[in-house]
Amino acid sequence: MNSLKPLQQRIDSFLTACISQIEASKLQQAMEYSLLAGGKRIRPILVYLTGQMFNCPLSKLDEAAAAIEAIHTYSLIHDDLPAMDNDDLRRGKPTCHIQFGEAQAILAGDALQSLAFSILAKSKLIDDETKINMITELAHASGVNGMCLGQSLDLQATHQSISLEHLQKIHCYKTGALIKTAIRLGAFACGEIAKPYQLMLDRYAEAIGLAFQIQDDILDIIGEQSIMGKPQGSDLTHEKSTYPALIGLDSAVKLTQQLYQQAIDSLKQIPYNNQPLQELAGYIINRNS
Amino acid sequence: MNSLKPLQQRIDSFLTACISQIEASKLQQAMEYSLLAGGKRIRPILVYLTGQMFNCPLSKLDEAAAAIEAIHTYSLIHDDLPAMDNDDLRRGKPTCHIQFGEAQAILAGDALQSLAFSILAKSKLIDDETKINMITELAHASGVNGMCLGQSLDLQATHQSISLEHLQKIHCYKTGALIKTAIRLGAFACGEIAKPYQLMLDRYAEAIGLAFQIQDDILDIIGEQSIMGKPQGSDLTHEKSTYPALIGLDSAVKLTQQLYQQAIDSLKQIPYNNQPLQELAGYIINRNS
Repeated sequence: MNSLKPLQQRIDSFLTACISQIEASKLQQAMEYSLLAGGKRIRPILVYLTGQMFNCPLSKLDEAAAAIEAIHTYSLIHDDLPAMDNDDLRRGKPTCHIQFGEAQAILAGDALQSLAFSILAKSKLIDDETKINMITELAHASGVNGMCLGQSLDLQATHQSISLEHLQKIHCYKTGALIKTAIRLGAFACGEIAKPYQLMLDRYAEAIGLAFQIQDDILDIIGEQSIMGKPQGSDLTHEKSTYPALIGLDSAVKLTQQLYQQAIDSLKQIPYNNQPLQELAGYIINRNS
Repeated sequence: MNSLKPLQQRIDSFLTACISQIEASKLQQAMEYSLLAGGKRIRPILVYLTGQMFNCPLSKLDEAAAAIEAIHTYSLIHDDLPAMDNDDLRRGKPTCHIQFGEAQAILAGDALQSLAFSILAKSKLIDDETKINMITELAHASGVNGMCLGQSLDLQATHQSISLEHLQKIHCYKTGALIKTAIRLGAFACGEIAKPYQLMLDRYAEAIGLAFQIQDDILDIIGEQSIMGKPQGSDLTHEKSTYPALIGLDSAVKLTQQLYQQAIDSLKQIPYNNQPLQELAGYIINRNS
Protein backbone atom coordinates (compact mmCIF):
# COMPACT_ATOMS: atom_id res chain seq x y z
CA MET A 1 0.00 0.00 0.00
CA ASN A 2 1.98 2.96 -1.35
CA SER A 3 0.25 5.64 0.73
CA LEU A 4 1.72 4.06 3.89
CA LYS A 5 5.33 4.51 2.74
CA PRO A 6 5.86 7.99 4.25
CA LEU A 7 4.62 6.81 7.65
CA GLN A 8 6.71 3.64 7.45
CA GLN A 9 9.73 5.80 6.66
CA ARG A 10 8.87 8.15 9.52
CA ILE A 11 8.68 5.40 12.14
CA ASP A 12 11.81 3.73 10.75
CA SER A 13 13.73 7.02 11.09
CA PHE A 14 12.40 7.60 14.59
CA LEU A 15 13.25 4.07 15.73
CA THR A 16 16.70 4.36 14.16
CA ALA A 17 17.28 7.55 16.14
CA CYS A 18 16.08 5.91 19.38
CA ILE A 19 18.27 2.83 19.05
CA SER A 20 21.36 4.62 17.82
CA GLN A 21 21.39 6.82 20.92
CA ILE A 22 22.11 3.70 23.00
CA GLU A 23 25.74 2.89 23.71
CA ALA A 24 26.98 0.10 21.45
CA SER A 25 27.01 -3.42 22.90
CA LYS A 26 26.11 -6.90 21.75
CA LEU A 27 22.74 -6.41 23.43
CA GLN A 28 22.16 -3.11 21.65
CA GLN A 29 23.06 -4.79 18.34
CA ALA A 30 20.55 -7.57 18.91
CA MET A 31 17.83 -5.03 19.71
CA GLU A 32 18.68 -2.94 16.66
CA TYR A 33 18.80 -6.01 14.42
CA SER A 34 15.21 -6.92 15.20
CA LEU A 35 13.78 -3.44 15.64
CA LEU A 36 15.07 -2.23 12.27
CA ALA A 37 14.40 -5.45 10.35
CA GLY A 38 11.57 -3.79 8.47
CA GLY A 39 8.11 -5.24 8.77
CA LYS A 40 4.82 -3.64 7.88
CA ARG A 41 4.76 -1.25 10.88
CA ILE A 42 0.98 -1.64 11.08
CA ARG A 43 0.77 -0.70 14.77
CA PRO A 44 2.73 2.58 14.54
CA ILE A 45 0.80 3.42 11.38
CA LEU A 46 -2.43 2.95 13.32
CA VAL A 47 -1.15 5.38 15.95
CA TYR A 48 -0.31 7.95 13.27
CA LEU A 49 -3.51 7.55 11.22
CA THR A 50 -5.75 7.75 14.28
CA GLY A 51 -4.00 10.88 15.49
CA GLN A 52 -4.01 12.45 12.04
CA MET A 53 -7.76 11.91 11.74
CA PHE A 54 -8.20 14.35 14.64
CA ASN A 55 -5.56 16.71 13.23
CA CYS A 56 -2.86 15.83 15.75
CA PRO A 57 0.64 16.72 14.51
CA LEU A 58 2.74 13.62 13.75
CA SER A 59 5.50 14.86 16.05
CA LYS A 60 3.17 14.33 19.02
CA LEU A 61 2.61 10.71 17.93
CA ASP A 62 6.19 9.52 17.32
CA GLU A 63 6.87 8.24 20.84
CA ALA A 64 3.62 6.29 21.10
CA ALA A 65 4.24 4.81 17.64
CA ALA A 66 7.79 3.82 18.57
CA ALA A 67 6.81 2.40 21.95
CA ILE A 68 4.19 0.10 20.49
CA GLU A 69 6.57 -1.12 17.79
CA ALA A 70 9.23 -1.82 20.43
CA ILE A 71 6.69 -3.93 22.36
CA HIS A 72 5.63 -5.71 19.17
CA THR A 73 9.25 -6.43 18.22
CA TYR A 74 10.09 -7.81 21.67
CA SER A 75 7.08 -10.13 21.41
CA LEU A 76 8.26 -11.40 18.00
CA ILE A 77 11.76 -12.10 19.35
CA HIS A 78 10.39 -14.08 22.30
CA ASP A 79 7.68 -15.85 20.25
CA ASP A 80 10.35 -17.07 17.81
CA LEU A 81 12.45 -18.71 20.56
CA PRO A 82 12.95 -22.49 20.51
CA ALA A 83 10.87 -22.85 23.69
CA MET A 84 7.98 -21.02 21.98
CA ASP A 85 7.28 -21.21 18.21
CA ASN A 86 10.88 -22.16 17.32
CA ASP A 87 11.04 -20.13 14.10
CA ASP A 88 14.34 -19.56 12.28
CA LEU A 89 13.16 -16.92 9.84
CA ARG A 90 11.41 -13.60 10.43
CA ARG A 91 10.92 -10.71 8.00
CA GLY A 92 13.15 -12.62 5.55
CA LYS A 93 16.11 -12.73 7.92
CA PRO A 94 17.40 -15.19 10.54
CA THR A 95 15.48 -14.68 13.78
CA CYS A 96 17.21 -12.87 16.64
CA HIS A 97 18.18 -16.04 18.53
CA ILE A 98 19.63 -17.62 15.36
CA GLN A 99 21.73 -14.51 14.80
CA PHE A 100 22.74 -13.69 18.40
CA GLY A 101 22.05 -16.82 20.44
CA GLU A 102 19.11 -17.57 22.71
CA ALA A 103 20.34 -15.78 25.81
CA GLN A 104 21.02 -12.48 24.03
CA ALA A 105 17.69 -12.77 22.21
CA ILE A 106 15.78 -13.16 25.47
CA LEU A 107 17.61 -10.14 26.88
CA ALA A 108 17.06 -8.10 23.69
CA GLY A 109 13.32 -8.72 24.05
CA ASP A 110 13.42 -7.79 27.73
CA ALA A 111 15.33 -4.60 27.06
CA LEU A 112 13.03 -3.62 24.18
CA GLN A 113 10.11 -3.79 26.58
CA SER A 114 11.89 -1.44 29.00
CA LEU A 115 12.79 0.79 26.05
CA ALA A 116 9.12 1.11 25.08
CA PHE A 117 8.18 2.52 28.48
CA SER A 118 11.30 4.65 28.53
CA ILE A 119 10.42 6.24 25.17
CA LEU A 120 6.87 7.01 26.28
CA ALA A 121 7.94 8.44 29.63
CA LYS A 122 10.51 10.74 27.99
CA SER A 123 8.18 12.20 25.33
CA LYS A 124 8.60 15.99 25.29
CA LEU A 125 5.35 17.00 23.58
CA ILE A 126 2.89 15.02 25.70
CA ASP A 127 1.72 16.12 29.14
CA ASP A 128 2.33 13.88 32.16
CA GLU A 129 -1.31 12.86 32.61
CA THR A 130 -1.54 11.66 29.01
CA LYS A 131 1.78 9.84 29.33
CA ILE A 132 0.49 7.99 32.40
CA ASN A 133 -2.69 7.04 30.52
CA MET A 134 -0.59 5.76 27.63
CA ILE A 135 1.78 3.78 29.88
CA THR A 136 -1.16 2.28 31.80
CA GLU A 137 -2.83 1.27 28.54
CA LEU A 138 0.33 -0.16 26.97
CA ALA A 139 1.34 -2.10 30.09
CA HIS A 140 -2.16 -3.54 30.39
CA ALA A 141 -2.39 -4.56 26.73
CA SER A 142 1.03 -6.18 26.61
CA GLY A 143 1.01 -8.11 29.88
CA VAL A 144 -0.96 -10.76 31.73
CA ASN A 145 -4.27 -9.23 30.64
CA GLY A 146 -3.26 -8.92 27.00
CA MET A 147 -0.55 -10.04 24.63
CA CYS A 148 1.40 -12.30 27.01
CA LEU A 149 -1.82 -14.03 28.07
CA GLY A 150 -2.71 -14.56 24.40
CA GLN A 151 0.64 -16.19 23.66
CA SER A 152 0.35 -18.31 26.82
CA LEU A 153 -3.12 -19.54 25.82
CA ASP A 154 -1.94 -20.10 22.25
CA LEU A 155 0.91 -22.33 23.41
CA GLN A 156 -1.41 -24.26 25.70
CA ALA A 157 -3.78 -24.84 22.77
CA THR A 158 -1.06 -26.32 20.51
CA HIS A 159 -1.70 -29.97 19.56
CA GLN A 160 -5.28 -29.61 20.79
CA SER A 161 -8.56 -29.04 19.06
CA ILE A 162 -10.24 -25.96 20.51
CA SER A 163 -13.56 -24.23 19.99
CA LEU A 164 -14.01 -21.25 17.69
CA GLU A 165 -14.90 -19.20 20.75
CA HIS A 166 -11.63 -20.08 22.46
CA LEU A 167 -9.64 -19.37 19.29
CA GLN A 168 -11.25 -15.94 19.08
CA LYS A 169 -10.31 -15.30 22.72
CA ILE A 170 -6.68 -16.24 21.99
CA HIS A 171 -6.53 -13.93 18.97
CA CYS A 172 -8.24 -11.16 20.87
CA TYR A 173 -5.49 -11.17 23.51
CA LYS A 174 -2.53 -12.15 21.36
CA THR A 175 -2.96 -9.73 18.46
CA GLY A 176 -6.10 -7.73 19.14
CA ALA A 177 -5.03 -6.14 22.41
CA LEU A 178 -1.99 -4.37 20.95
CA ILE A 179 -3.85 -3.26 17.82
CA LYS A 180 -6.60 -1.72 19.94
CA THR A 181 -3.96 -0.03 22.08
CA ALA A 182 -2.22 1.43 19.01
CA ILE A 183 -5.47 3.17 18.08
CA ARG A 184 -6.12 4.23 21.66
CA LEU A 185 -2.64 5.74 22.04
CA GLY A 186 -3.23 7.73 18.84
CA ALA A 187 -6.52 8.97 20.29
CA PHE A 188 -5.03 9.75 23.72
CA ALA A 189 -2.48 12.05 22.07
CA CYS A 190 -5.37 14.11 20.64
CA GLY A 191 -6.90 14.87 24.04
CA GLU A 192 -10.57 15.82 24.45
CA ILE A 193 -11.39 15.96 20.73
CA ALA A 194 -11.12 12.16 20.32
CA LYS A 195 -12.86 11.11 23.55
CA PRO A 196 -16.46 10.97 22.21
CA TYR A 197 -15.35 8.46 19.56
CA GLN A 198 -13.58 5.96 21.83
CA LEU A 199 -16.26 3.30 21.43
CA MET A 200 -16.30 3.52 17.62
CA LEU A 201 -12.51 3.41 17.53
CA ASP A 202 -12.50 0.34 19.80
CA ARG A 203 -15.03 -1.41 17.54
CA TYR A 204 -12.98 -0.57 14.46
CA ALA A 205 -9.89 -1.89 16.26
CA GLU A 206 -11.55 -5.12 17.34
CA ALA A 207 -12.75 -5.82 13.81
CA ILE A 208 -9.43 -5.16 12.09
CA GLY A 209 -7.51 -6.90 14.87
CA LEU A 210 -9.41 -10.14 14.34
CA ALA A 211 -9.37 -9.73 10.55
CA PHE A 212 -5.60 -9.24 10.71
CA GLN A 213 -5.11 -12.51 12.55
CA ILE A 214 -7.49 -14.49 10.33
CA GLN A 215 -5.66 -13.10 7.28
CA ASP A 216 -2.41 -14.31 8.90
CA ASP A 217 -3.98 -17.78 9.22
CA ILE A 218 -5.13 -17.65 5.58
CA LEU A 219 -1.70 -16.52 4.33
CA ASP A 220 -0.11 -19.36 6.24
CA ILE A 221 -2.02 -21.67 3.88
CA ILE A 222 -2.10 -19.80 0.57
CA GLY A 223 0.74 -17.26 0.94
CA GLU A 224 4.11 -17.36 -0.76
CA GLN A 225 7.14 -17.73 1.49
CA SER A 226 9.25 -15.38 -0.65
CA ILE A 227 6.75 -12.55 -0.13
CA MET A 228 5.96 -13.27 3.54
CA GLY A 229 9.59 -13.57 4.67
CA LYS A 230 8.75 -16.51 6.92
CA PRO A 231 8.00 -20.19 6.28
CA GLN A 232 4.56 -20.92 4.92
CA GLY A 233 2.57 -23.77 6.54
CA SER A 234 4.04 -23.25 10.01
CA ASP A 235 0.61 -23.37 11.72
CA LEU A 236 0.13 -26.87 10.34
CA THR A 237 3.65 -27.86 11.40
CA HIS A 238 2.99 -26.59 14.93
CA GLU A 239 -0.49 -28.17 14.97
CA LYS A 240 -2.10 -24.84 15.75
CA SER A 241 -5.82 -24.24 15.59
CA THR A 242 -6.65 -21.61 12.97
CA TYR A 243 -9.79 -20.12 11.48
CA PRO A 244 -9.36 -21.93 8.14
CA ALA A 245 -8.85 -25.21 10.01
CA LEU A 246 -11.96 -24.70 12.15
CA ILE A 247 -14.42 -23.17 9.67
CA GLY A 248 -12.80 -23.82 6.26
CA LEU A 249 -10.83 -21.51 3.99
CA ASP A 250 -13.83 -20.03 2.16
CA SER A 251 -15.68 -19.16 5.35
CA ALA A 252 -12.52 -17.64 6.81
CA VAL A 253 -12.17 -15.39 3.74
CA LYS A 254 -15.84 -14.44 4.03
CA LEU A 255 -15.39 -13.63 7.72
CA THR A 256 -12.54 -11.21 7.01
CA GLN A 257 -14.86 -9.43 4.57
CA GLN A 258 -17.60 -9.19 7.20
CA LEU A 259 -15.11 -7.83 9.71
CA TYR A 260 -13.91 -5.31 7.14
CA GLN A 261 -17.48 -4.09 6.75
CA GLN A 262 -17.92 -3.83 10.53
CA ALA A 263 -14.72 -1.80 10.75
CA ILE A 264 -15.91 0.59 8.02
CA ASP A 265 -19.36 0.96 9.61
CA SER A 266 -17.79 1.97 12.93
CA LEU A 267 -15.41 4.40 11.28
CA LYS A 268 -18.18 6.13 9.35
CA GLN A 269 -19.69 7.28 12.63
CA ILE A 270 -16.64 9.44 13.25
CA PRO A 271 -17.18 12.79 11.50
CA TYR A 272 -13.55 13.40 10.58
CA ASN A 273 -11.51 12.35 7.57
CA ASN A 274 -11.61 8.60 8.16
CA GLN A 275 -10.52 7.65 4.62
CA PRO A 276 -6.93 6.64 5.56
CA LEU A 277 -8.14 4.29 8.34
CA GLN A 278 -10.68 2.82 5.86
CA GLU A 279 -7.88 2.15 3.41
CA LEU A 280 -5.81 0.52 6.12
CA ALA A 281 -8.67 -1.85 6.94
CA GLY A 282 -8.77 -2.77 3.25
CA TYR A 283 -5.00 -3.29 3.21
CA ILE A 284 -5.18 -5.61 6.22
CA ILE A 285 -7.60 -8.01 4.60
CA ASN A 286 -6.05 -7.84 1.12
CA ARG A 287 -2.36 -8.01 2.04
CA ASN A 288 -0.28 -10.89 0.77
CA SER A 289 2.46 -10.78 3.42
CA MET B 1 17.62 -9.34 60.49
CA ASN B 2 14.47 -9.28 62.59
CA SER B 3 13.77 -5.56 62.24
CA LEU B 4 13.13 -6.10 58.51
CA LYS B 5 10.28 -8.57 59.13
CA PRO B 6 7.44 -5.99 59.22
CA LEU B 7 8.57 -4.48 55.91
CA GLN B 8 8.98 -7.94 54.36
CA GLN B 9 5.46 -8.75 55.48
CA ARG B 10 4.18 -5.45 54.14
CA ILE B 11 5.62 -5.97 50.65
CA ASP B 12 4.49 -9.62 50.63
CA SER B 13 0.93 -8.53 51.44
CA PHE B 14 1.00 -5.79 48.82
CA LEU B 15 2.37 -8.11 46.13
CA THR B 16 -0.19 -10.76 47.08
CA ALA B 17 -2.95 -8.19 46.62
CA CYS B 18 -1.54 -7.09 43.24
CA ILE B 19 -1.22 -10.60 41.83
CA SER B 20 -4.51 -11.91 43.20
CA GLN B 21 -6.42 -9.14 41.39
CA ILE B 22 -5.37 -10.70 38.08
CA GLU B 23 -7.76 -13.17 36.50
CA ALA B 24 -6.59 -16.76 37.08
CA SER B 25 -4.65 -18.42 34.26
CA LYS B 26 -1.60 -20.61 33.91
CA LEU B 27 0.39 -17.46 33.20
CA GLN B 28 -0.94 -15.73 36.31
CA GLN B 29 -0.03 -18.84 38.35
CA ALA B 30 3.54 -18.82 37.04
CA MET B 31 3.89 -15.13 37.89
CA GLU B 32 2.43 -15.63 41.37
CA TYR B 33 4.63 -18.69 42.00
CA SER B 34 7.82 -16.69 41.49
CA LEU B 35 6.66 -13.35 42.87
CA LEU B 36 5.48 -14.84 46.16
CA ALA B 37 8.32 -17.35 46.57
CA GLY B 38 9.76 -15.33 49.43
CA GLY B 39 13.27 -14.00 49.10
CA LYS B 40 14.92 -11.28 51.13
CA ARG B 41 12.97 -8.40 49.54
CA ILE B 42 16.07 -6.20 49.81
CA ARG B 43 15.03 -3.84 46.98
CA PRO B 44 11.53 -3.05 48.30
CA ILE B 45 12.98 -2.68 51.77
CA LEU B 46 15.44 -0.12 50.39
CA VAL B 47 12.50 1.80 48.91
CA TYR B 48 10.69 1.78 52.26
CA LEU B 49 13.72 2.62 54.44
CA THR B 50 14.81 5.49 52.18
CA GLY B 51 11.32 6.94 52.17
CA GLN B 52 10.92 6.47 55.94
CA MET B 53 14.17 8.31 56.57
CA PHE B 54 12.50 11.42 55.14
CA ASN B 55 9.24 10.70 56.99
CA CYS B 56 7.32 9.56 53.92
CA PRO B 57 4.28 7.40 54.82
CA LEU B 58 4.75 3.76 53.80
CA SER B 59 1.49 3.85 51.83
CA LYS B 60 3.13 6.25 49.36
CA LEU B 61 5.98 3.78 48.85
CA ASP B 62 4.10 0.52 48.28
CA GLU B 63 3.80 0.80 44.49
CA ALA B 64 7.46 1.68 43.96
CA ALA B 65 8.48 -1.18 46.27
CA ALA B 66 6.23 -3.63 44.44
CA ALA B 67 7.31 -2.46 40.98
CA ILE B 68 10.98 -2.96 41.70
CA GLU B 69 10.37 -6.41 43.18
CA ALA B 70 8.34 -7.38 40.08
CA ILE B 71 11.27 -6.31 37.88
CA HIS B 72 13.72 -8.19 40.10
CA THR B 73 11.57 -11.34 40.03
CA TYR B 74 11.21 -11.25 36.24
CA SER B 75 15.01 -10.99 35.95
CA LEU B 76 15.47 -14.02 38.21
CA ILE B 77 13.00 -16.09 36.14
CA HIS B 78 14.80 -15.21 32.90
CA ASP B 79 18.31 -15.58 34.37
CA ASP B 80 17.44 -19.09 35.56
CA LEU B 81 16.40 -20.26 32.06
CA PRO B 82 18.39 -23.06 30.39
CA ALA B 83 19.69 -20.59 27.76
CA MET B 84 21.02 -18.35 30.54
CA ASP B 85 22.30 -19.69 33.90
CA ASN B 86 20.31 -22.94 33.69
CA ASP B 87 19.44 -23.13 37.38
CA ASP B 88 16.87 -25.61 38.71
CA LEU B 89 16.52 -24.24 42.21
CA ARG B 90 15.66 -20.73 43.44
CA ARG B 91 14.66 -19.64 46.92
CA GLY B 92 14.58 -23.32 47.87
CA LYS B 93 11.96 -24.21 45.24
CA PRO B 94 12.09 -25.46 41.64
CA THR B 95 12.71 -22.51 39.32
CA CYS B 96 9.77 -21.17 37.30
CA HIS B 97 10.70 -23.01 34.08
CA ILE B 98 11.10 -26.31 35.95
CA GLN B 99 7.64 -25.85 37.45
CA PHE B 100 5.76 -24.37 34.47
CA GLY B 101 7.92 -25.08 31.41
CA GLU B 102 10.26 -22.74 29.57
CA ALA B 103 7.68 -20.99 27.41
CA GLN B 104 5.40 -20.05 30.30
CA ALA B 105 8.42 -18.97 32.35
CA ILE B 106 9.59 -16.61 29.60
CA LEU B 107 6.06 -15.17 29.38
CA ALA B 108 5.75 -14.91 33.17
CA GLY B 109 8.92 -12.81 33.19
CA ASP B 110 7.67 -10.66 30.34
CA ALA B 111 4.31 -10.08 32.01
CA LEU B 112 5.94 -9.27 35.36
CA GLN B 113 7.88 -6.51 33.64
CA SER B 114 4.64 -5.04 32.24
CA LEU B 115 3.05 -5.44 35.67
CA ALA B 116 5.82 -3.38 37.27
CA PHE B 117 5.09 -0.38 35.04
CA SER B 118 1.38 -0.92 35.41
CA ILE B 119 1.61 -0.82 39.21
CA LEU B 120 3.66 2.38 39.16
CA ALA B 121 1.40 4.10 36.64
CA LYS B 122 -1.72 3.28 38.67
CA SER B 123 -0.43 4.51 42.03
CA LYS B 124 -3.09 6.69 43.66
CA LEU B 125 -0.97 8.63 46.16
CA ILE B 126 1.80 9.80 43.82
CA ASP B 127 1.44 12.77 41.45
CA ASP B 128 1.87 12.25 37.71
CA GLU B 129 5.23 14.05 37.46
CA THR B 130 6.73 11.84 40.16
CA LYS B 131 5.27 8.73 38.53
CA ILE B 132 6.92 9.68 35.23
CA ASN B 133 10.25 10.22 37.01
CA MET B 134 9.92 6.82 38.66
CA ILE B 135 8.98 5.05 35.41
CA THR B 136 11.85 6.73 33.53
CA GLU B 137 14.29 5.70 36.25
CA LEU B 138 13.01 2.11 36.50
CA ALA B 139 12.95 1.59 32.72
CA HIS B 140 16.47 2.97 32.42
CA ALA B 141 17.89 0.85 35.24
CA SER B 142 16.31 -2.38 34.08
CA GLY B 143 16.98 -2.18 30.34
CA VAL B 144 19.84 -1.88 27.87
CA ASN B 145 21.60 0.71 30.04
CA GLY B 146 21.21 -1.30 33.22
CA MET B 147 20.25 -4.76 34.41
CA CYS B 148 19.77 -6.40 30.98
CA LEU B 149 23.14 -5.06 29.83
CA GLY B 150 24.76 -6.44 32.98
CA GLN B 151 23.34 -9.91 32.38
CA SER B 152 24.35 -9.72 28.72
CA LEU B 153 27.95 -8.80 29.63
CA ASP B 154 27.99 -11.45 32.35
CA LEU B 155 27.01 -14.16 29.88
CA GLN B 156 29.61 -12.97 27.39
CA ALA B 157 32.27 -13.14 30.11
CA THR B 158 31.50 -16.78 31.02
CA HIS B 159 34.41 -19.17 30.35
CA GLN B 160 36.71 -16.16 30.02
CA SER B 161 39.16 -14.49 32.34
CA ILE B 162 38.27 -10.82 32.69
CA SER B 163 39.81 -7.85 34.47
CA LEU B 164 38.68 -6.66 37.88
CA GLU B 165 37.56 -3.43 36.21
CA HIS B 166 35.33 -5.30 33.77
CA LEU B 167 33.90 -7.47 36.56
CA GLN B 168 33.02 -4.34 38.51
CA LYS B 169 31.30 -2.92 35.42
CA ILE B 170 29.24 -6.10 35.04
CA HIS B 171 28.19 -6.03 38.71
CA CYS B 172 27.44 -2.31 38.51
CA TYR B 173 24.91 -2.90 35.72
CA LYS B 174 23.62 -6.33 36.70
CA THR B 175 22.91 -5.75 40.39
CA GLY B 176 23.96 -2.20 41.18
CA ALA B 177 21.59 -0.41 38.82
CA LEU B 178 18.42 -1.79 40.37
CA ILE B 179 19.66 -1.29 43.94
CA LYS B 180 20.45 2.34 43.18
CA THR B 181 17.03 2.72 41.60
CA ALA B 182 15.29 1.25 44.65
CA ILE B 183 16.82 3.99 46.78
CA ARG B 184 16.07 6.66 44.18
CA LEU B 185 12.41 5.64 43.94
CA GLY B 186 12.15 5.89 47.71
CA ALA B 187 13.65 9.38 47.53
CA PHE B 188 11.46 10.46 44.59
CA ALA B 189 8.35 9.64 46.62
CA CYS B 190 9.50 12.14 49.26
CA GLY B 191 9.64 15.09 46.85
CA GLU B 192 11.79 18.16 47.52
CA ILE B 193 12.94 17.14 51.00
CA ALA B 194 15.17 14.33 49.66
CA LYS B 195 16.64 16.16 46.64
CA PRO B 196 19.68 17.73 48.36
CA TYR B 197 20.83 14.24 49.41
CA GLN B 198 20.67 12.51 46.03
CA LEU B 199 24.44 12.29 45.66
CA MET B 200 24.97 10.78 49.14
CA LEU B 201 22.15 8.31 48.53
CA ASP B 202 23.68 7.31 45.19
CA ARG B 203 27.09 6.77 46.85
CA TYR B 204 25.49 4.68 49.59
CA ALA B 205 23.66 2.68 46.92
CA GLU B 206 26.78 2.09 44.82
CA ALA B 207 28.72 0.85 47.85
CA ILE B 208 26.05 -1.54 49.11
CA GLY B 209 25.22 -2.66 45.54
CA LEU B 210 28.78 -3.80 44.94
CA ALA B 211 29.10 -5.21 48.46
CA PHE B 212 25.90 -7.17 47.90
CA GLN B 213 27.27 -8.79 44.77
CA ILE B 214 30.69 -9.57 46.27
CA GLN B 215 28.93 -11.15 49.26
CA ASP B 216 26.94 -13.24 46.76
CA ASP B 217 30.25 -14.36 45.22
CA ILE B 218 31.64 -15.16 48.68
CA LEU B 219 28.52 -17.10 49.71
CA ASP B 220 28.77 -19.10 46.51
CA ILE B 221 32.06 -20.44 47.91
CA ILE B 222 31.50 -20.62 51.67
CA GLY B 223 27.69 -20.59 51.97
CA GLU B 224 25.45 -23.50 52.87
CA GLN B 225 23.01 -24.65 50.21
CA SER B 226 20.28 -25.38 52.77
CA ILE B 227 20.36 -21.77 53.96
CA MET B 228 20.80 -20.13 50.55
CA GLY B 229 18.04 -22.10 48.82
CA LYS B 230 20.14 -22.48 45.69
CA PRO B 231 23.11 -24.67 44.76
CA GLN B 232 26.43 -23.60 46.23
CA GLY B 233 29.45 -23.50 43.87
CA SER B 234 27.42 -22.56 40.79
CA ASP B 235 29.82 -19.75 39.79
CA LEU B 236 32.60 -22.31 39.56
CA THR B 237 30.35 -24.70 37.60
CA HIS B 238 29.46 -21.92 35.17
CA GLU B 239 33.11 -20.75 35.00
CA LYS B 240 32.13 -17.25 36.03
CA SER B 241 34.63 -14.62 37.06
CA THR B 242 34.08 -13.55 40.68
CA TYR B 243 35.79 -11.27 43.17
CA PRO B 244 37.15 -14.17 45.28
CA ALA B 245 38.49 -15.80 42.10
CA LEU B 246 40.20 -12.59 40.94
CA ILE B 247 41.53 -11.15 44.20
CA GLY B 248 41.25 -14.06 46.66
CA LEU B 249 38.67 -14.78 49.36
CA ASP B 250 40.33 -12.77 52.13
CA SER B 251 40.70 -9.66 49.98
CA ALA B 252 37.09 -10.00 48.85
CA VAL B 253 35.91 -10.10 52.46
CA LYS B 254 38.07 -7.07 53.24
CA LEU B 255 36.60 -5.23 50.27
CA THR B 256 33.04 -5.74 51.48
CA GLN B 257 34.11 -4.21 54.80
CA GLN B 258 35.60 -1.20 53.05
CA LEU B 259 32.45 -0.78 50.99
CA TYR B 260 30.37 -1.01 54.17
CA GLN B 261 32.40 1.85 55.64
CA GLN B 262 31.95 3.93 52.48
CA ALA B 263 28.21 3.36 52.63
CA ILE B 264 28.06 4.45 56.29
CA ASP B 265 30.20 7.54 55.62
CA SER B 266 27.84 8.66 52.86
CA LEU B 267 24.75 8.03 54.98
CA LYS B 268 26.12 10.03 57.91
CA GLN B 269 26.02 13.16 55.76
CA ILE B 270 22.23 12.91 55.64
CA PRO B 271 20.83 14.66 58.74
CA TYR B 272 17.83 12.39 59.22
CA ASN B 273 17.45 9.10 61.08
CA ASN B 274 19.76 7.01 58.93
CA GLN B 275 20.11 4.18 61.47
CA PRO B 276 17.83 1.69 59.60
CA LEU B 277 19.77 2.14 56.33
CA GLN B 278 23.03 1.69 58.29
CA GLU B 279 21.71 -1.57 59.71
CA LEU B 280 20.70 -2.72 56.26
CA ALA B 281 24.24 -2.14 54.97
CA GLY B 282 25.49 -4.29 57.84
CA TYR B 283 22.95 -6.98 57.04
CA ILE B 284 24.04 -7.04 53.39
CA ILE B 285 27.66 -7.81 54.18
CA ASN B 286 26.95 -10.18 57.07
CA ARG B 287 24.07 -12.18 55.57
CA ASN B 288 24.51 -15.92 55.10
CA SER B 289 21.94 -16.38 52.33
